[in-house]
Amino acid sequence: MTRVATPGDGVRVAFVGAGPGEADLITLRGAQRLQTADVVLFDSLADPALRQLAPNARWIDVGKRGFTGVAHAPRGGGRENTGQDTINALLVKHALSGAKVVRLKGGDPSVFGRLEEELEALAAAGIECEVVPGVTAALAAAAATQRPLTRRGAGRSIALTTAMTHAGELIAGRHADTESFYMAGKQLAALSRRLVASGWRPDTPALVVSRAGWSDQIASEHAVGTLGDATVLHSGRPTVVTVGVGARAVAAAHEHGDAARAAQAGATGTAAAAVSSEARSSVGTSTP
Amino acid sequence: MTRVATPGDGVRVAFVGAGPGEADLITLRGAQRLQTADVVLFDSLADPALRQLAPNARWIDVGKRGFTGVAHAPRGGGRENTGQDTINALLVKHALSGAKVVRLKGGDPSVFGRLEEELEALAAAGIECEVVPGVTAALAAAAATQRPLTRRGAGRSIALTTAMTHAGELIAGRHADTESFYMAGKQLAALSRRLVASGWRPDTPALVVSRAGWSDQIASEHAVGTLGDATVLHSGRPTVVTVGVGARAVAAAHEHGDAARAAQAGATGTAAAAVSSEARSSVGTSTP
Repeated sequence: MTRVATPGDGVRVAFVGAGPGEADLITLRGAQRLQTADVVLFDSLADPALRQLAPNARWIDVGKRGFTGVAHAPRGGGRENTGQDTINALLVKHALSGAKVVRLKGGDPSVFGRLEEELEALAAAGIECEVVPGVTAALAAAAATQRPLTRRGAGRSIALTTAMTHAGELIAGRHADTESFYMAGKQLAALSRRLVASGWRPDTPALVVSRAGWSDQIASEHAVGTLGDATVLHSGRPTVVTVGVGARAVAAAHEHGDAARAAQAGATGTAAAAVSSEARSSVGTSTP
Repeated sequence: MTRVATPGDGVRVAFVGAGPGEADLITLRGAQRLQTADVVLFDSLADPALRQLAPNARWIDVGKRGFTGVAHAPRGGGRENTGQDTINALLVKHALSGAKVVRLKGGDPSVFGRLEEELEALAAAGIECEVVPGVTAALAAAAATQRPLTRRGAGRSIALTTAMTHAGELIAGRHADTESFYMAGKQLAALSRRLVASGWRPDTPALVVSRAGWSDQIASEHAVGTLGDATVLHSGRPTVVTVGVGARAVAAAHEHGDAARAAQAGATGTAAAAVSSEARSSVGTSTP
């Protein structure tokens, strides 16, 4: 057994989870690190409003988007995706210059954030750093739709998965009571087929949330077998797909007794529970 | 397909994730909800320092601890565990009285937070609510130990699981590249046996972090087969156990070329990568 120490006073670089969307979903600690930063390296998933927390820092857009690191379309200034090696070099350069550096990442740095590569680069340069955690997208999607990822009796495990590998291959299975797929928006129909092939019942509840945690978030409920229907609605937006017990609406206790009992019964009761969501008072629904 | 609406202006109750530990790991939004609250129902996992964010609110300790809802030992005032029915009734009562209510939960409300039951009670009473997400313990453990839960090539999925069922049964398997077990501290030796029986190699890296996100956090690294060694060190403290690729230390790039290559090679390279952690500059280690 080896005890693992935490960073001391020599921290030069703080990796900060910006949270899943709007600026106020960052932690107080993350906001404090921004306030004292000289240089902020940020990617395109972070809310531009966060700049107000560090107006005097130098903000450098390293424009990496998501796990695959695919170049996003050139914007106004014609900026392209910044390669991982460049980001690593910038981190080391600014830290060695004596600047206080924040590396701001969308969501949580430890979840699909490519944190490993940047930690390796700093370790090689002997630069001490800290990691400030953040809210990851699956949790934001659950919060915004009021659909807890764990449920009484039926939901004891959650899997967070990327649907796509580096090589662009779509992989999906059945690993937990509730499964959240990150960055799945482009391949919803294929994801549906994969999920059914790997043992999910086609009528299992599925929830698609794009831009989770933002004011223009869109959420829609489906079944695993009809996930493809969500393609157009969420097109071009960062998307999280939740499948299993955590995707179904929470039924009102007592008032909708049948739905509540169905919900408690687990997977077999999901269809009834999903229908009941349309009668709920606290989460309105509308058909586009 | 049904679109799911988000809460409007009539929100009376905010479920707020307090984050995994110290008060500054709450989100800005969560802090803002506390500042405007009249009544705060909190459980024992939230940092008492959060009270400073809502000094004029009425703070009510509903003392539920973790998923199992097991009564914690009576403290000074002889308070006992507050049952879920009582919590539900308090939420409804205070919301109907016109008070702005915050229900503060340790970590993230949607992850092992028993949120479902409380949402059901409010829905039955026709009370509109919102959920403000928080940082869950597994992410805090990863951040504090600088061990990302996902890794290049080898770590594409994360499972968050309670090791214990409501009935007190220990269930553990192999569901993802990295698996985080919540509330596993009391049964580390049994968890070790279960994990090996379900296919994890005994030399798979395992990380035990208790009071993740607090200043008195303790982290220790082990192998799956020797998890029991951590029992005494973490005794009596809320504990998260991380198993798999996300448990191993990040190797410095270039400087420790062999370790880095081993880390990239995935599970077969874990022993070498774990050893290399003792030579790292950014995360010191000590043997107690």
